[in-house]
Amino acid sequence: MDNIDLSPAALLRLDTPAAVIDTVRMQRNIQRMQARMDALGVRFRPHAKTSKCTPVVQAQLQAGARGITVSTIKEAAHFFADGIDDILYGVGMVPSKLPQALALRRRGCDLKIVTDSVASAQAIAAFGAEHGEAFEVWIEIDTDGHRSGIRADEAALIEVGRILHEGGARLGGVMTHAGSSYDLDTPEALAAMAEQERAGCVTAAQRLREAGLPCPVVSVGSTPTALSARHLEGVTEVRAGVYVFFDLVMRNVGVCATDDVALSVLATVIGHQPEKGWAIVDAGWMAMSRDRGTQKQKHDCGYGQVCAVDGTVIPGYVLSGANQEHGILAREGSPDTGIAARFPVGTLLRILPNHACATGAQFPAYQALAEDGQIATWSRFHGW
Amino acid sequence: MDNIDLSPAALLRLDTPAAVIDTVRMQRNIQRMQARMDALGVRFRPHAKTSKCTPVVQAQLQAGARGITVSTIKEAAHFFADGIDDILYGVGMVPSKLPQALALRRRGCDLKIVTDSVASAQAIAAFGAEHGEAFEVWIEIDTDGHRSGIRADEAALIEVGRILHEGGARLGGVMTHAGSSYDLDTPEALAAMAEQERAGCVTAAQRLREAGLPCPVVSVGSTPTALSARHLEGVTEVRAGVYVFFDLVMRNVGVCATDDVALSVLATVIGHQPEKGWAIVDAGWMAMSRDRGTQKQKHDCGYGQVCAVDGTVIPGYVLSGANQEHGILAREGSPDTGIAARFPVGTLLRILPNHACATGAQFPAYQALAEDGQIATWSRFHGW
Repeated sequence: MDNIDLSPAALLRLDTPAAVIDTVRMQRNIQRMQARMDALGVRFRPHAKTSKCTPVVQAQLQAGARGITVSTIKEAAHFFADGIDDILYGVGMVPSKLPQALALRRRGCDLKIVTDSVASAQAIAAFGAEHGEAFEVWIEIDTDGHRSGIRADEAALIEVGRILHEGGARLGGVMTHAGSSYDLDTPEALAAMAEQERAGCVTAAQRLREAGLPCPVVSVGSTPTALSARHLEGVTEVRAGVYVFFDLVMRNVGVCATDDVALSVLATVIGHQPEKGWAIVDAGWMAMSRDRGTQKQKHDCGYGQVCAVDGTVIPGYVLSGANQEHGILAREGSPDTGIAARFPVGTLLRILPNHACATGAQFPAYQALAEDGQIATWSRFHGW
Repeated sequence: MDNIDLSPAALLRLDTPAAVIDTVRMQRNIQRMQARMDALGVRFRPHAKTSKCTPVVQAQLQAGARGITVSTIKEAAHFFADGIDDILYGVGMVPSKLPQALALRRRGCDLKIVTDSVASAQAIAAFGAEHGEAFEVWIEIDTDGHRSGIRADEAALIEVGRILHEGGARLGGVMTHAGSSYDLDTPEALAAMAEQERAGCVTAAQRLREAGLPCPVVSVGSTPTALSARHLEGVTEVRAGVYVFFDLVMRNVGVCATDDVALSVLATVIGHQPEKGWAIVDAGWMAMSRDRGTQKQKHDCGYGQVCAVDGTVIPGYVLSGANQEHGILAREGSPDTGIAARFPVGTLLRILPNHACATGAQFPAYQALAEDGQIATWSRFHGW
């Protein structure tokens, strides 16, 4: 448990539902990850898609992060406007987005883009040649089969490298994301996945170099593998996003404790169905998001774990269901027929989310709760 | 199929992902519901939570709707600012939100509020007495056990009615929402649920009236029951939300056809994993939402049904998986190893959502495609 005083006084003044960041926990999460990256001898490039919030990203950079990763061009434009220029756009580039990428680079943004196909590489090279721009491109490597990327052993890897390098682009490196690490929940399996991610990406870099192509950057990462890798030989940087807040999915994966989760949704009890053991709160799926990431994990938390307003977990109480603006709060297992007395109308609670990236996206701003109990409103952006 | 020309030209100019409204389909959905309500002899009060968008709500009012329902105080304030004054805030009132409700009423908004408990009714009456405001309050009735409300046979119904009426509030009526209709998929079961919703709410009104309490309004509704009720004797108004766009969940429930779905997400193919039969698109769960409402229905559509850019369904192709900004497009059943040729990088597609309310919320604006192929940007609001 935290030994700090989370003053309920400041939270009592907020309208609900509200997305509350416990900034003490957030800073602890940031320091933990950065210290680990420092110890492993790699640069750290956090993924800003989790927070989409400048004060959060600034805290990551102040702790030692070098550059950021983004998932949309809008994120790149936003953070560049806020003074961050080393940006990796980590989603495969398509021709229709090249004009926006070009505009950002022309304004001085050191934007790196990603490809995993001959077709996109050709389009990037042709567009760059047409506009006199040497785009920095990283090749996406598939190390776990979960989504995108070229496998390290595919012929297409060298072909894409040559198209870029000989076509006038700057071949900046290789990057991979072992997203299937989210499906694991033992230290041994996580360490093995981290090694698979590392080895696959390093092998891809070696193949490019053996083919006479440049490959300065070897970038890997996901929150579970970043926190589980035993060494990162051959890797130059790591990326991770959700570690900054953590969430119930990550708790179930085993890379954080419940008391590390820094994001919660402040909610008010609005009614009861005492015979069913339900309290109804004003945080439904619009606030929590529809993410049910714990559904297939070892502890299904419904739409979230219920905590007291001071952040103390109330064991056994979860949001068992959700409508758009109604959350159904119930005890796991047997109904609590005394729930109306336990949580009267007007009670403030904090609900830990399954997935911080999804829950944060439901809110235009975070309420950042500092150690002294003061609250600052940190806006986050929405859309594309 | 529509027999109109949905000009791809206008869609080609949009950045992806984008939330596209087919306004021809939307108007058809609006007209169909309004004609049905007119034939059943009831007023219609659409739920604005689906669109959170003024031009959509204006189209509903122009077609004959009388007033609106909202799910948050922010929606009430937004639509009142846009000139709509007959507003039902359909989520149980709590003391902390009464000052905002009072402020809206003082500015001339005919805001109705809802309660289903003695505690809230007492708080509303006390706050109203303190501020000299006779709040109009409707009592929420539970007709299907799915969420909130007082059952028609409970003693609390009369108790709450008396607290409000004798405490100086205006007892405006009763309202219910048979949300469990979403779990049904046969006309007979839907008609039976509509009758259960009607009968329960009418019974509650009769009990109040027999106790000497006023109950002018009897308000029922959900999209499935509104489209399935055989008669609405004793009901004065119906509420429904998602019918304006429809979605795959409603198609599976059986109250619309696939070609009635008016909301889609415009997406671009950004890559492939040909051996797996995957195309990767730039609409992941951030665009589609995490809603997997078809998961337990008779046709699980993953994260959405794939259509050509002109809106024509491509049978058998769905988003089988989603990461934050990556959607995995695959054929149901056997992999399509020719998928890279079928959907080359850069291909524009439209993805029909599981749940229009959840998908719309992921976007700051809709792109409203008119019959003449022109596109207008309709902003929608976000947060609380």
